[in-house]
Amino acid sequence: MSRRIRERGVVIGSLPPGPGNRITDVPGVTVGHCTVREGDACTGVTVILPCPENPFAHKLCAASFVWNGFGKTAGLVQIDELGRLESPIALTNTLNVGLVQDALVEYMLRRCQAEGVKITSFNPVVGECNDSGLNHIARRAVGLDQVLAAIDSAGTDFALGDVGAGAGTQCHGLKGGIGSASRVLEIEGQKYTLGILVQSNYGKLEDLRLDGAAIGRDIARRLAAPDAPDQGSIMMIVATDLPVNERQLGRIIRRASVGLARLGSYVGHGSGEVMIGFTTACRFDHEGAPAVCSQPVLREELLDGAFRAVAECCEEAVLDSMVCAAPARLPEGEILHSLDEFI
Amino acid sequence: MSRRIRERGVVIGSLPPGPGNRITDVPGVTVGHCTVREGDACTGVTVILPCPENPFAHKLCAASFVWNGFGKTAGLVQIDELGRLESPIALTNTLNVGLVQDALVEYMLRRCQAEGVKITSFNPVVGECNDSGLNHIARRAVGLDQVLAAIDSAGTDFALGDVGAGAGTQCHGLKGGIGSASRVLEIEGQKYTLGILVQSNYGKLEDLRLDGAAIGRDIARRLAAPDAPDQGSIMMIVATDLPVNERQLGRIIRRASVGLARLGSYVGHGSGEVMIGFTTACRFDHEGAPAVCSQPVLREELLDGAFRAVAECCEEAVLDSMVCAAPARLPEGEILHSLDEFI
Amino acid sequence: MSRRIRERGVVIGSLPPGPGNRITDVPGVTVGHCTVREGDACTGVTVILPCPENPFAHKLCAASFVWNGFGKTAGLVQIDELGRLESPIALTNTLNVGLVQDALVEYMLRRCQAEGVKITSFNPVVGECNDSGLNHIARRAVGLDQVLAAIDSAGTDFALGDVGAGAGTQCHGLKGGIGSASRVLEIEGQKYTLGILVQSNYGKLEDLRLDGAAIGRDIARRLAAPDAPDQGSIMMIVATDLPVNERQLGRIIRRASVGLARLGSYVGHGSGEVMIGFTTACRFDHEGAPAVCSQPVLREELLDGAFRAVAECCEEAVLDSMVCAAPARLPEGEILHSLDEFI
Amino acid sequence: MSRRIRERGVVIGSLPPGPGNRITDVPGVTVGHCTVREGDACTGVTVILPCPENPFAHKLCAASFVWNGFGKTAGLVQIDELGRLESPIALTNTLNVGLVQDALVEYMLRRCQAEGVKITSFNPVVGECNDSGLNHIARRAVGLDQVLAAIDSAGTDFALGDVGAGAGTQCHGLKGGIGSASRVLEIEGQKYTLGILVQSNYGKLEDLRLDGAAIGRDIARRLAAPDAPDQGSIMMIVATDLPVNERQLGRIIRRASVGLARLGSYVGHGSGEVMIGFTTACRFDHEGAPAVCSQPVLREELLDGAFRAVAECCEEAVLDSMVCAAPARLPEGEILHSLDEFI
Repeated sequence: MSRRIRERGVVIGSLPPGPGNRITDVPGVTVGHCTVREGDACTGVTVILPCPENPFAHKLCAASFVWNGFGKTAGLVQIDELGRLESPIALTNTLNVGLVQDALVEYMLRRCQAEGVKITSFNPVVGECNDSGLNHIARRAVGLDQVLAAIDSAGTDFALGDVGAGAGTQCHGLKGGIGSASRVLEIEGQKYTLGILVQSNYGKLEDLRLDGAAIGRDIARRLAAPDAPDQGSIMMIVATDLPVNERQLGRIIRRASVGLARLGSYVGHGSGEVMIGFTTACRFDHEGAPAVCSQPVLREELLDGAFRAVAECCEEAVLDSMVCAAPARLPEGEILHSLDEFI
Repeated sequence: MSRRIRERGVVIGSLPPGPGNRITDVPGVTVGHCTVREGDACTGVTVILPCPENPFAHKLCAASFVWNGFGKTAGLVQIDELGRLESPIALTNTLNVGLVQDALVEYMLRRCQAEGVKITSFNPVVGECNDSGLNHIARRAVGLDQVLAAIDSAGTDFALGDVGAGAGTQCHGLKGGIGSASRVLEIEGQKYTLGILVQSNYGKLEDLRLDGAAIGRDIARRLAAPDAPDQGSIMMIVATDLPVNERQLGRIIRRASVGLARLGSYVGHGSGEVMIGFTTACRFDHEGAPAVCSQPVLREELLDGAFRAVAECCEEAVLDSMVCAAPARLPEGEILHSLDEFI
Repeated sequence: MSRRIRERGVVIGSLPPGPGNRITDVPGVTVGHCTVREGDACTGVTVILPCPENPFAHKLCAASFVWNGFGKTAGLVQIDELGRLESPIALTNTLNVGLVQDALVEYMLRRCQAEGVKITSFNPVVGECNDSGLNHIARRAVGLDQVLAAIDSAGTDFALGDVGAGAGTQCHGLKGGIGSASRVLEIEGQKYTLGILVQSNYGKLEDLRLDGAAIGRDIARRLAAPDAPDQGSIMMIVATDLPVNERQLGRIIRRASVGLARLGSYVGHGSGEVMIGFTTACRFDHEGAPAVCSQPVLREELLDGAFRAVAECCEEAVLDSMVCAAPARLPEGEILHSLDEFI
Repeated sequence: MSRRIRERGVVIGSLPPGPGNRITDVPGVTVGHCTVREGDACTGVTVILPCPENPFAHKLCAASFVWNGFGKTAGLVQIDELGRLESPIALTNTLNVGLVQDALVEYMLRRCQAEGVKITSFNPVVGECNDSGLNHIARRAVGLDQVLAAIDSAGTDFALGDVGAGAGTQCHGLKGGIGSASRVLEIEGQKYTLGILVQSNYGKLEDLRLDGAAIGRDIARRLAAPDAPDQGSIMMIVATDLPVNERQLGRIIRRASVGLARLGSYVGHGSGEVMIGFTTACRFDHEGAPAVCSQPVLREELLDGAFRAVAECCEEAVLDSMVCAAPARLPEGEILHSLDEFI
């Protein structure tokens, strides 16, 4: 893995990152990948595990926001109604959503059986980007084995760039991938962390901005790159341990779009953009919960810190997804360059 | 005021009502009317005060749901974003929303000044029905004096029928008005109350159902009433002391539509239908709140009782709004009958 | 198949049904089932084909409405963003959504290849109910073969009751299933059809109403049925040839809830309720469409007819789903009665 | 009025502006101001007239998007339900929304009476920012006279900066105001215009970016400005003559947030941000419309041009609102500088 954007001297925003500058700086969160590069398949799956415990048995407070709904993300209907996450979140390619969803069902059935948790319903959450430029997408190369492998490999120090669900993605006309970042907030003496993981697959080269500077225009000129429409998508998964409820979480995650805009995105028609967020601040037990429980809520004005954090994280995570990815060769033979070559 | 529907032997649903079978059975809630009958004006204002304290200084958890948005209700944008109510809720006629909104601003500025609360922003909440059949609506007869009079008169034992914001309304081709009902729920040994107040102004006569029985068809035949489109609106204000958060409150209030459907409404195009709900279970201080507070949340399955309660309340409240209203004479001379005459 | 509710003298509403009183009265719409009854599996899949042409190549105007989002329906994010349907709609059991989604992907890839249509993205639409009372749901018995079999068998004269996705469902404490109904509207001399298909799996026995009459209470007494929570779900698929746009379609389909309420539903917490609608009135070509096309829009007041139609259809379709279903034996040995036995 | 940002050599984006680089480049759209500077009042009203004809009699296709709902905008409920605009759009200060709403009612009643149009219901649209830093907001200095004066003065060549509803606003710690911009799009040989008008009143000084460059940081250092929370709001009114329907319009206007983000906004908690858009491409008659009419719809991929246009317009319009505003003196005596002094 190549050096991260911050190690190259590009510092996005003003808030301090966590120790790993990754979503896994939020205590309890782990991430695993399984990359599939076989024949004409160049794709994979990335799984975010929101907590060490079984999330079905001990649900987390969650929210979603659909910035641009040209996409096939699974699981949002129930998150929106109940404000709860009960599943790992898996990212993959567009046509693989069904199989990955089924793999999460199988995983959770097995886990619940092993743990003696009764389960007859389950809301798997799966996001996707269309990697059909590099990947023979009709193949649906990601199945149960790949999902279980990603879960098995999950840890806090996961790879960035062209791995897992980012193996085949493109971003601003360069190689896209998986990026991550985090920020630490201090509220009345207490430290909290907010982190993001993105699967980047959107945007036009000429629009790319590096902390405000129009580098995409220059790179496009250098490469004499032909004009291409903004297609693809970006999935943004936000984790935090902030004491916020589902409404507040919804307000936070939609600010990830601020980071996107600063990168130069116009949120093109073809680019599905979805945010999913959860907080580990409290847990809702599937069985045996009291009639009334108490949920922490942050004083509303204090959300401003989280708004800034999520925007900074998103901007930095996308840049990392790009600089950490190696160049790739498109099926037609052309090189898909890496941002790494230009910074 | 005429006998209520329950006193006539019509019992809607299975849950027990509170002592007054009104929204004011929720402790702290009061209601006041000011009726305007002068010249060609036949209208008024009804104000629901959610708590004895200043709601701007001590906000309540709130939610809204727009069933049919053909209407001009004020204040929903902020309720939806922040999940908080900081104003009395006033109901009036369609063209009077602006003036009543301004009257609430004036009321709150005065109250805050008197109480030493700093205020530079304020979200007044005003609902409306179109009473232009009985009322010369262009006149906008409700102003500051009427709103203050309604607030001054607020109590727990308020009148039902053709009073306040219900003076000029029509419902299912008969006289409409203000109705109210409540239900008591017991959850693990603790009693809670849910109440509703409606301003009824919707529906076709032939569609009216009385606890399932198609009485509207019979009344229409008896009166040889001509066919008329479903126009108007219904405002449904829901109060409770249940320990629910804003998301759960949103789930509860949208079930008021179940009561409406049982009454025979098809939610006609021209009938704006809006639910606003709040719970008195906790309060959020405008100033001096701690960084993190804790909000009660009900175990999700236990909402079923509240869902049933709100549907029953809505069905009964509309019937009460109708049987408690006296017949009226339309400007063209025709009689607008009361349901009271037919039960 | 047992006699339908209308043949038993129960006439819901006032509008005339189409010739088959099914969703397939809308020209071009066909429906197919595949029922799986093997070992402890008692489930299936029902597919609604919106048009004879490839819907991916010639998309339809569509809308969705989530009444209660405790469910796993796939495909709504994109329908909401783009207002278009490009897939058959498949209904199945809760844990089978992933596999059925993948089967629709496979079906559409094959069809597009056969027809020379380029496809790298596709939005499959899958609804679900939880049939785990009668079906060993962890098995996920519905796969590609079953979905293709359902599509192959699609026609206009499809079976109702305990077939396809309705094989294992329960409704109001009795046997649920697939129901359907239609209504014909005349607008300025032109006839239009609106039809519905439901997969019924919700509600408490004691709440069931038959055209307003509280028959559930009587049946519960007769059967001495124990109290059970309102769990399950209901999927409501609405088809029409009315000249409406996606916003208007959204207004129409949410009125299906009126029919539900009249049947006695309180839209219990555990009962996911989702409406999906489409109109065949115009088509949007995936390739080669002009820059500007013109979409028909109905004069807004004329929607009232469609509102009434969809409410009537939903009420009648659920009753049909129940009377057309044979009784079943629960795994524990108890009989799950059919409404057929009580009317 | 000071020179506009483009005249100073700052060119935002790549699309060409219309002749006036204002919202009024969209044919038929006019704008008028009334500024109130009396005693401690420093506020006003700005009215956007969407068409020369009576918009109540000939409604326009419209959409709204609430980016941050901490605000009191009136009229959105009905716009969202019906997709139609029937009113001029007035902008003013937060506590004046009620009176301005009532003034629009009076205006429309008079106009309809004069034109022989029957009117008993009307949906006035009023946006607001909180200008209480410069304006004694409790005064509610904007009434019927001011609204009528603004309407009377409406034209295509309206003033920018600290006028009308922008008289008292602050933006990024400097003087805010009214800004506007437009872009011309060419689609298959046909030219279309998209324009925006903003009332800017949000943001922190240190966050301000000028086409990507962090000038706010430098200005803050120069002024030794103390840190202040992001409060206020921004209203964004979008007009176009593009052949789009209400859903597409909704997709377009939400991209105004891209421009905001590039200016350095994190969409602070206290900053209500609302977009309202309309197209003049077709009209829906209040009376006498045919049963079925046909609405133009743009091929979805072609929206990309409009997405870029609205983002560019928003970014440029906010900058213009700032550079065109003169410095002001706060009640406490401090100077509120103008961006004009720093470019």
